[in-house]
Amino acid sequence: MLTVDLNGDIGESFGVYKIGNDRLLMKEVTSVNIACGYHAGDHNTMAQTVKLAAEQGLEIGAHPGYQDLIGFGRRSIQTTPEDIYHMIVYQVSALKGFCQLFHVPLKHVKPHGALYNEAAINRGVADAIAQAVVDCDSSLILYGLAGSELIAAGRAKNLKVANEVFADRTYQDNGTLTPRHFGERAIIHDEEVAVAQVLTILKGNRVQSIDGNWVSMEADTVCIHGDNEQAVQLGRRLRYVLEQEGITVSPLSNKS
Amino acid sequence: MLTVDLNGDIGESFGVYKIGNDRLLMKEVTSVNIACGYHAGDHNTMAQTVKLAAEQGLEIGAHPGYQDLIGFGRRSIQTTPEDIYHMIVYQVSALKGFCQLFHVPLKHVKPHGALYNEAAINRGVADAIAQAVVDCDSSLILYGLAGSELIAAGRAKNLKVANEVFADRTYQDNGTLTPRHFGERAIIHDEEVAVAQVLTILKGNRVQSIDGNWVSMEADTVCIHGDNEQAVQLGRRLRYVLEQEGITVSPLSNKS
Amino acid sequence: MLTVDLNGDIGESFGVYKIGNDRLLMKEVTSVNIACGYHAGDHNTMAQTVKLAAEQGLEIGAHPGYQDLIGFGRRSIQTTPEDIYHMIVYQVSALKGFCQLFHVPLKHVKPHGALYNEAAINRGVADAIAQAVVDCDSSLILYGLAGSELIAAGRAKNLKVANEVFADRTYQDNGTLTPRHFGERAIIHDEEVAVAQVLTILKGNRVQSIDGNWVSMEADTVCIHGDNEQAVQLGRRLRYVLEQEGITVSPLSNKS
Amino acid sequence: MLTVDLNGDIGESFGVYKIGNDRLLMKEVTSVNIACGYHAGDHNTMAQTVKLAAEQGLEIGAHPGYQDLIGFGRRSIQTTPEDIYHMIVYQVSALKGFCQLFHVPLKHVKPHGALYNEAAINRGVADAIAQAVVDCDSSLILYGLAGSELIAAGRAKNLKVANEVFADRTYQDNGTLTPRHFGERAIIHDEEVAVAQVLTILKGNRVQSIDGNWVSMEADTVCIHGDNEQAVQLGRRLRYVLEQEGITVSPLSNKS
Repeated sequence: MLTVDLNGDIGESFGVYKIGNDRLLMKEVTSVNIACGYHAGDHNTMAQTVKLAAEQGLEIGAHPGYQDLIGFGRRSIQTTPEDIYHMIVYQVSALKGFCQLFHVPLKHVKPHGALYNEAAINRGVADAIAQAVVDCDSSLILYGLAGSELIAAGRAKNLKVANEVFADRTYQDNGTLTPRHFGERAIIHDEEVAVAQVLTILKGNRVQSIDGNWVSMEADTVCIHGDNEQAVQLGRRLRYVLEQEGITVSPLSNKS
Repeated sequence: MLTVDLNGDIGESFGVYKIGNDRLLMKEVTSVNIACGYHAGDHNTMAQTVKLAAEQGLEIGAHPGYQDLIGFGRRSIQTTPEDIYHMIVYQVSALKGFCQLFHVPLKHVKPHGALYNEAAINRGVADAIAQAVVDCDSSLILYGLAGSELIAAGRAKNLKVANEVFADRTYQDNGTLTPRHFGERAIIHDEEVAVAQVLTILKGNRVQSIDGNWVSMEADTVCIHGDNEQAVQLGRRLRYVLEQEGITVSPLSNKS
Repeated sequence: MLTVDLNGDIGESFGVYKIGNDRLLMKEVTSVNIACGYHAGDHNTMAQTVKLAAEQGLEIGAHPGYQDLIGFGRRSIQTTPEDIYHMIVYQVSALKGFCQLFHVPLKHVKPHGALYNEAAINRGVADAIAQAVVDCDSSLILYGLAGSELIAAGRAKNLKVANEVFADRTYQDNGTLTPRHFGERAIIHDEEVAVAQVLTILKGNRVQSIDGNWVSMEADTVCIHGDNEQAVQLGRRLRYVLEQEGITVSPLSNKS
Repeated sequence: MLTVDLNGDIGESFGVYKIGNDRLLMKEVTSVNIACGYHAGDHNTMAQTVKLAAEQGLEIGAHPGYQDLIGFGRRSIQTTPEDIYHMIVYQVSALKGFCQLFHVPLKHVKPHGALYNEAAINRGVADAIAQAVVDCDSSLILYGLAGSELIAAGRAKNLKVANEVFADRTYQDNGTLTPRHFGERAIIHDEEVAVAQVLTILKGNRVQSIDGNWVSMEADTVCIHGDNEQAVQLGRRLRYVLEQEGITVSPLSNKS
């Protein structure tokens, strides 16, 4: 029987600055990735967000990023694997502290933004992240772009990995996301097309690229963005259709 | 038999900015307090510093402060107990992550600078810090100004506490340090006078204030500053004299 | 004939974080105070905000605050007058650079949040701010709490000053605002009561304190907050009533 | 008659963190580049540094960089030309404010670190910087790597430009510096070789690359680093030799 996790990025507010619809998004997903104070989030936001997620019974992961609040972690910063290794340890450990406060386990790690994209194609960066996760807690699941270098790096270090796919983004022939600067070609606005893409991946283990070619793709988890109402709505629709199709929506730790 | 711990603040460099004589200072102390990235320190510095301290066999503590790099955590920032509680959890947890990397236990927590001073006299701040320590790990030792509100708050929550005294600072009638803005009256420059003050506290459980009155004072640990060569020299002299006097210099976890 | 300025705080977004209804608020005011990158704002936000304000023909002022994004400049930070003097010079000069880009003059300076409150009661802080304004440009108008130390400091240095009053906040017997932590007593929720308070100040040069006493008060400018729809609505109502009452709503530089 | 400027980077301390030998370095140079609070420096350091430079009669320039204190501006950050344009306006304007305090003119702008390197080879970045300088003050001189895109961008916008060369760094066939990660081949340790390289450039308008080829090169200013005693010593030696050779060491604004 097919099962899939739905994950959402939350806890990205900072001080008085509020962002995202965390409460709404949490109703549509089975796991959440919480910002750790580098690209977004702060110690108060982390505490409140872990508490909320724990109350909802969601699986909690760390969402570490570059230390770049002004760029929201979306800008690549040239640095060393050693620096990346330490920045992951710092952020994951800080979030783990908040999980402990609320007596919930930390279950996974998913890098954010530019760090996620870098890790998808750069094995040095991917290895640094995977090693940091191993050294923090080797039972953590590493989320990464489906079929990417990060997934390969995690597997090489015997980590459990989660291939992540996107409903509302198009793919290129090499299995990476079409970059946002490609404009309209990068984004899938039609809800039914987005839902269909996920179904095709889950049932057929493949996706059609923007150039019309079929690319192999596994999916363990689907990312639901939370920055707008429309995204939350897409999550709701996706969940409904998946269940209609007999696909179990369930967190990864329930997977045998 | 009398025993006392000597502690030093280390790991306060940031990026390319180097501060302190960590390697020299580590030779003179039995425990160290490592900055956690808020008032000083960063994820790379924390990793290197924990590694060095572990190699020296020193007991390691977290040294959390206000999030104020430009003020080095020496400026009081008006905030809520809840904010303080969360900032302690964040910093202590992050440092704990680095201790785990190098397979050494985190043993204590000592607040830094303005947060330390605030916690010495403000019970609300002291309680927030003590509760954060309890919730992170109730076996951690809480270092605070000897006889201060922080010590009282720690005891009330059944934490092990360490009364900290200073060799090169003068005391006021109420047992608090003479503030630095008092100028020369606040500092003891003469090494022999500084060493004698520590001996008096350890043997007589009292100290003479700047106004000439005797104030009760317990000491479990003595702070050795590391910002200048002279301070390291004072640490060396103090250690020598303590051993001559038959006082065991030893970390607190060895204390029965 | 009575004239009064209405001012609003804008440009407080940071990176992807958006805050306030700048476009709406700008329709209701005659002058604006733009954040300078310390408590809020960033170099991109400053450019966009100055451009918008210039297009609307509004008088532009700098809104410098403590360097404390996480606290939004609302927390007092213990520091020296010299530090405050330099932080004002830095922020005012940076904003002046953006005014120059869009060929509009910088007209005034209004400290933000905790710095504003501190300057209202602490003459050392007030003097540091006033001196910085003089040294940046002695033709700038200094906005401060009506009748406060900041107004006195500005006058003593021959700066033009603007006594600022609030529609939706209550006053204490000493002419300062009732602190927010007093809860409901600090805030005026009823729009008509708020408007009436401004009229009383403008026509009678006095305000009734929360304890029922009359306090002398001059008003050159009224602050309209922009954090919620209701505040913008209050601004609209206030402007309408003032014009009905024959009071000219006009920026301060038009005042003879 | 040949003349050349010697320039040094100063004002890179931050809060309690001190870096560089500004006082020593200022004795060896004719112009200085002062950090503006993004990659290094802060409002207090800027004030003190401008004051010192003004007292020494040195020509003062702004040294803007990426907003990256932890990386000291040495890491490339992926961003837009618009963002770069605004970050230059912000930093240059802030420094200009401090120059005004001490009644000295701001004379030039030299980008720092990764921004300098990016501007040397990326015309979009170079254009953004040059346009910001034009819009801040079109009489400012733009310092850039000799013969680089930044020099071309400045010339295209009718800015005065200063071709900068390095004494202690080797060059590649395309006229750019050998990157530091090339290790020993990138650095010239022998003082006499370094001095000779500068003489060759000044007298012959060319330099020999690490691959032995001759590359055309103009020099208006020579960079003297200030991070170590040896660098200051090299500056002293260079100045002595230049004067022996009849080459006038003089700031650029004296150049006809």
